[in-house]
Amino acid sequence: MSNVYAVIMAGGAGTRFWPASRALRPKQLLPLAGAENETLLAATVRRLRPLVTEDRVVVVTGEHLAEPTARAVPGVPEAQILREPAPRNTAPCIAWANATIARLDPDAVVMVLPSDHFISDEPGFQRVLELAVASAERGHVTTVGIVPSRPETGYGYIEVGDPLDAGGGAARAVKRFVEKPDRARAESFVAAGPSRYLWNAGMFFFRVRDMAELLERHLPGVAAGVARMGDDPAAVREVFPTLESVSIDHGVMEKATNLAVVPGDFGWNDVGSWQSAWELAERDANGNAVGASDVVVDARGNLVRSLGASKKTIALVGVNDLVVVETDDAILVIPRDRAQDVRLVVDALKKSGRTTLT
Amino acid sequence: MSNVYAVIMAGGAGTRFWPASRALRPKQLLPLAGAENETLLAATVRRLRPLVTEDRVVVVTGEHLAEPTARAVPGVPEAQILREPAPRNTAPCIAWANATIARLDPDAVVMVLPSDHFISDEPGFQRVLELAVASAERGHVTTVGIVPSRPETGYGYIEVGDPLDAGGGAARAVKRFVEKPDRARAESFVAAGPSRYLWNAGMFFFRVRDMAELLERHLPGVAAGVARMGDDPAAVREVFPTLESVSIDHGVMEKATNLAVVPGDFGWNDVGSWQSAWELAERDANGNAVGASDVVVDARGNLVRSLGASKKTIALVGVNDLVVVETDDAILVIPRDRAQDVRLVVDALKKSGRTTLT
Repeated sequence: MSNVYAVIMAGGAGTRFWPASRALRPKQLLPLAGAENETLLAATVRRLRPLVTEDRVVVVTGEHLAEPTARAVPGVPEAQILREPAPRNTAPCIAWANATIARLDPDAVVMVLPSDHFISDEPGFQRVLELAVASAERGHVTTVGIVPSRPETGYGYIEVGDPLDAGGGAARAVKRFVEKPDRARAESFVAAGPSRYLWNAGMFFFRVRDMAELLERHLPGVAAGVARMGDDPAAVREVFPTLESVSIDHGVMEKATNLAVVPGDFGWNDVGSWQSAWELAERDANGNAVGASDVVVDARGNLVRSLGASKKTIALVGVNDLVVVETDDAILVIPRDRAQDVRLVVDALKKSGRTTLT
Repeated sequence: MSNVYAVIMAGGAGTRFWPASRALRPKQLLPLAGAENETLLAATVRRLRPLVTEDRVVVVTGEHLAEPTARAVPGVPEAQILREPAPRNTAPCIAWANATIARLDPDAVVMVLPSDHFISDEPGFQRVLELAVASAERGHVTTVGIVPSRPETGYGYIEVGDPLDAGGGAARAVKRFVEKPDRARAESFVAAGPSRYLWNAGMFFFRVRDMAELLERHLPGVAAGVARMGDDPAAVREVFPTLESVSIDHGVMEKATNLAVVPGDFGWNDVGSWQSAWELAERDANGNAVGASDVVVDARGNLVRSLGASKKTIALVGVNDLVVVETDDAILVIPRDRAQDVRLVVDALKKSGRTTLT
C-alpha cells in the first residue's frame, strides 16, 4: 500500500498505571502488554509494518514527551514526530498530521490509530486495516468498530447502518456515534449484535483530501490555523495552542455524512487499567502474573510487576487478586477490582505537593 | 550496682522478619519496635544504663555477626563482644560469659538478658531488675517471670512457689519450669493467676560463683571446656564448637534447687513476628502503621515498612490488615494474621538456591 500513511496519536498522559505511568512516562511508553520490553507505542508501529513502514508513520505527541517518544520508535523519521506545544484534543492533532502528510503525498490515504492499545490477533487486525483502507480509497471516511464482548459502559458505540459498496466490501454505513451508554443501554447494544452496534476504538481512515475538506467545512478555524503553521516550528508554537480544543468525533465525525465502518474482532484491548494488564499478562495455573524471580505462596490471581532498576524479588503469601507494582521510587498495593482508584493516589500526591511522584 | 554485669545473648538468626531479617542481619540488629532507628539490641543495652553501664556489658554473638553487632553497641568494649565460632545453644554461651566476667570481678553479680525483646515500661523493668539482682545477691539463681496477659502456647511457663526471704523481698521459689503448654493448660495457667504461673522470658540473675558451681555440678564438660578456653581466641575457636549444645534451662535451671523468680509486668513483648511489630508500632486512627511519606487510601490495619536505601513511597488503596515490607532487594506482602508463614518464603528461596536473599 504505497501511498498509505499512519498517524499514531501518542499524546496521552494517563495516571491509571501509577506508579509505572507518570506525567513524563505515560502509558504508551510502558511495556504493559505483550512482549516484555516492547512499549505499547512500539508495538503499535511494529504491527503496522506489513502495511505501512516506519518512513510513512507520523507520531503526534506532546513537546515534553518528544524525546522518550522518539526513542521508543527509532525507525520513524525525526521530522514525522510532531510535537504539540499544548494539548488541544484530537481534531487539531489530526488536522496537523493530515496537512503534514498532504505535503508529502497529496494522494495519500491516512490511518489514524491510538498508540496505547493492545491487539492479540495481529494478522486479523491487518486484514481489517486493509478493508478500512479500501473503504477510505473509495471516498468514505471510515472507522473500525470493535465487536463488543461485554456491555461496557466506558466506551462510545457506533450504530451500524446498511452495507456500502454493493461490490462486496466489508464496510457499512455509520448511522451515528453513540456516547458512553448507561448499563441498560450497553446491554441492549450487545444484545442487538455486532451488525447493529460496535465499539468506537478511535481508529479512522481517509484520503488526505477528504479530511482536508471536512475540516474546512466543519472546523474552518482549525483548518486555517494549520495552514498558517505549515511546517515552521515557530509558527506551530505560536498558532497550535490557539486552536479550538475539540475531538475529531465531535468536531468532524458526528457532522460528516458518508461515513463507513468496518467491523473488527482481533483481540482488541484498550489496556485501561492494571486490571487489563493482568488480563493480558501471562499467568500461572493460580492466575498469578509474576516475574520469574518472584515468590508466591498460597496466593491467587495477583499481578506483580517489578519495574525498578533493582528488580527486587517480590514475595506474596496468602493474598489474592492484588496488584503489586514496584518502580524506582514507589510501590503500589491495590486490589485488582479497585484498579481504577489508582488515581486517588495520584490525587493525594498532588494535593500534598509531591509532584515528582506524579 | 557497682559489681553487676549484664550478658546480652545476641546470637539469634531468625527468619520471622524476612525480608528485613537475614542470616547476616538478624532480628536483634533491626529497629523493629520503639524508636525509629534503634535496633532491639541497642535498646536492650540502653535501658540497662541506670543499672549497668556499657563497660560492664558482655554481648555474646556469632562470629559472622560480630561486626554489625559491635557497630550496634559502640559503647561496649571490643573485648566484651564474645564471638561464638559455632552456635551451641545458651548453656555454653552463658558459661563462657560467666567465666569472662569472673576474670574481671570474681564477686560480680550477672544478669543474662535476651537481645531481641521490647519493653514499654522501662522504669518498671529497671525496678524488677533491682529486685532480681538483690535476690541473686542473697545466693538464689533468679529469673524474672512475666505476668501472662493471654493463654500463650508459644512460651514456657514458670510454676511459682512460696515467698522467699521472709524479710519482704519480691522473690518467690521456683517450683518448676513448664514446657510450652497446649491451649487448655495455657488457659488454666492464666486462670490460676500470676501468683501461680508466669512466662519464662529467658532472663537470669546470679552471682558468678553460684553459676560456676552449678555448671561444674550439672554440665562439667562445658565447665571444663570453658576453663580450657580462657580468653585465648585460638583456644575458643578450637574448644567452643566441641561443647555440648544444650540450653541453660535444660542443662542447669531444671536441675538446680534454690531457684527464685521475681514477677514482672512491664510491657514485655518478644517481638515474635511482623504481627508483633504492628502491635508495637505507632498507628493512625485507621490502625495503619506507615511512614510519613506513604500514601494510604481507604485502607485499615496495615503495617508498611520501607527499609531500603531508596525509601520508596508505598501506596495502599483498599487493602486491610496487610504487612508490606520493602528492603533493598525484596518486597513482602502478607496478611498480618499469617505473619508466621514468612518462613515459607525463606524455605522457597533456599530450595531454589537463592540464598543471598535468605
